Amino acid sequence: MDLRVTYHLTAADGRDAATRARDIALEQTVELAADAVPADVAERIVGRVESVEPLGAARWRAVIAFDPVVVGRDLPQLLNLLFGNISLKPEILIAGVAWPPELLGALGGPTLGIAGLRDLTGARERALLCTALKPLGLSAAELAERCHRFALGGIDLIKDDHSLVDQPAAPFRERVERCQEAVVRANRATGGRALYFPNVTAGAAVSLERAGFARHVGCRGVVINALPAGLDTVRALAATGLAVMTHPSLAGAFFHAHHGIAPEVLLGEIFRVAGSDAVIYPNVGGRFTFSEDTCVAINDHLRHPLGDVRPAFPVPAGGIDVARVPHWIGRYGADTIFLVGGSLYAQPDLTAAARQLSEAVRRHPHE
Amino acid sequence: MDLRVTYHLTAADGRDAATRARDIALEQTVELAADAVPADVAERIVGRVESVEPLGAARWRAVIAFDPVVVGRDLPQLLNLLFGNISLKPEILIAGVAWPPELLGALGGPTLGIAGLRDLTGARERALLCTALKPLGLSAAELAERCHRFALGGIDLIKDDHSLVDQPAAPFRERVERCQEAVVRANRATGGRALYFPNVTAGAAVSLERAGFARHVGCRGVVINALPAGLDTVRALAATGLAVMTHPSLAGAFFHAHHGIAPEVLLGEIFRVAGSDAVIYPNVGGRFTFSEDTCVAINDHLRHPLGDVRPAFPVPAGGIDVARVPHWIGRYGADTIFLVGGSLYAQPDLTAAARQLSEAVRRHPHE
Repeated sequence: MDLRVTYHLTAADGRDAATRARDIALEQTVELAADAVPADVAERIVGRVESVEPLGAARWRAVIAFDPVVVGRDLPQLLNLLFGNISLKPEILIAGVAWPPELLGALGGPTLGIAGLRDLTGARERALLCTALKPLGLSAAELAERCHRFALGGIDLIKDDHSLVDQPAAPFRERVERCQEAVVRANRATGGRALYFPNVTAGAAVSLERAGFARHVGCRGVVINALPAGLDTVRALAATGLAVMTHPSLAGAFFHAHHGIAPEVLLGEIFRVAGSDAVIYPNVGGRFTFSEDTCVAINDHLRHPLGDVRPAFPVPAGGIDVARVPHWIGRYGADTIFLVGGSLYAQPDLTAAARQLSEAVRRHPHE
Repeated sequence: MDLRVTYHLTAADGRDAATRARDIALEQTVELAADAVPADVAERIVGRVESVEPLGAARWRAVIAFDPVVVGRDLPQLLNLLFGNISLKPEILIAGVAWPPELLGALGGPTLGIAGLRDLTGARERALLCTALKPLGLSAAELAERCHRFALGGIDLIKDDHSLVDQPAAPFRERVERCQEAVVRANRATGGRALYFPNVTAGAAVSLERAGFARHVGCRGVVINALPAGLDTVRALAATGLAVMTHPSLAGAFFHAHHGIAPEVLLGEIFRVAGSDAVIYPNVGGRFTFSEDTCVAINDHLRHPLGDVRPAFPVPAGGIDVARVPHWIGRYGADTIFLVGGSLYAQPDLTAAARQLSEAVRRHPHE
């Protein structure tokens, strides 16, 4: 089965649209004019334009089928095939991908997925809560103190802010030891199962080394900025068996109305097949600009059946507080991790703020 | 010294522009509202807005200074600080970066640079020529045959097409052995010093393993798709001492008029400090859409003094043939590698086509 990519293109008319589609099929594979491509290569390797249809307003939908042999098992080459050179051309948007099972099998996807991450937290049915340790600039001891308070208050997943790497104010190893100890101590007090996920964003080797250290001190998962670190680093982390939560840092470069990769494809499918157990995205009503439809589409794509690739948790972030969390659970469903930061930090007592929020989530009827 | 980033923003008026600038300074560091940030952290870590000036037409220039301690020595965190979260906000463009020497020293830049790559080729003053082995789908033997012809014709650098990774038609090791052998054989015949650079794009560990194999069979450099593989993989390759040529696959996601990172910053500086000895970009007049001003700016930024970071070769690709190459040498200068593909492949005799081109370059008066 082929890898089928749906593109939305700007073109003056159907003929122009067909030309643009044919150009993409060549550009993303052989990178040569059609008449310079040997016939057998053209047959096997050049993308096959399957359809070109009008979307109205000079926009067209083209479906191109690629042999997955072009990708192999290789995430950088997947990105390159999907959008590498054509990123440099105007008005091309990847609106959808149909994944051949052999490619999904080769790429793998999350190791834990929704069910595995639920096992770690012990929360079988309800929505989960996540918060971020911040700000960058606090000491490891100060961050650990915040971690302790959030865990006492019943937050399920306490993650490093995505800008905390190994800065001198809170060096990685010291931070991870202290925060993990704080979570364990809080869990002893509450009987809960709060988890601390450190941010291991770095080059691949350092990232894996940090993940190894995190596992050594008892962490069960990590956070990574997927695009800055490279998607293959996500895959390598997933292979360790730790839970992997990915952050959308830089992803906004792809999210233009007529250019890039649709958020539900990039965050909902590509991040998932790369190995994310949970994918953070900017919720509608927060500081960023996704529509509610986009958020729902990301949720859908993270959870829907995709060969043998496990479903992953959506992690909407922003615009969520104790008053609104019931609304969002109703809207997004219980298989969601709500990432709440600002509305907790705006309150003087972090434990009390976290407890109010976690009680609201636990009170909410399960689906 | 601080890392100073110049942003171009859309804003209704000066007050709105100042608010947006302040928001970037917080978003990219502490990710909290100002009143939730402890005073000492605000002082040390939050970006400092240094100026906000009108550019006309509701666009504003803001300069924000960041303490480079936020970045450390870490390329993924550099990308995250520059454009991570704000990629998800509308109408923000990074137009310039002023780099503190300590950060440049920590990141390192290219190992060879222009001078080192000239040493490898033996061409001290003239412009260099590069071509790509393609198409994907040919066997290793067929690609090696093309490699041999290009080397006989006097092309300096013969690189794998950026979509050749380890597909079954031309598996990496077989391809590299055969193409390197073809170049050596041609050099023996011509007395020349043509080089073959295989594409080692993959996750970091596999990329380094492939680079090691390439070095083992005698290659002196490699090509990598910098963004799909992750910038830290470029750094890791540069640390091996092999020459590193980077390809702009995916980079177009960042190149919007009012959003992203200006091409001369991303390709001309960020790719350079990551360790590129040579940076491929789409030349004006080729299949892509850069203006001549953008191309000249990329050339400038790759070559201009930047602390102790070595200058890197610009590698304009597209729109270059035997007739136009004198024009382009005049326009871009001799410290340029011209990547010529289509105009060679359009001709029946690759050796003759390459020879015509290389004679035109060698005939051109040096600066």
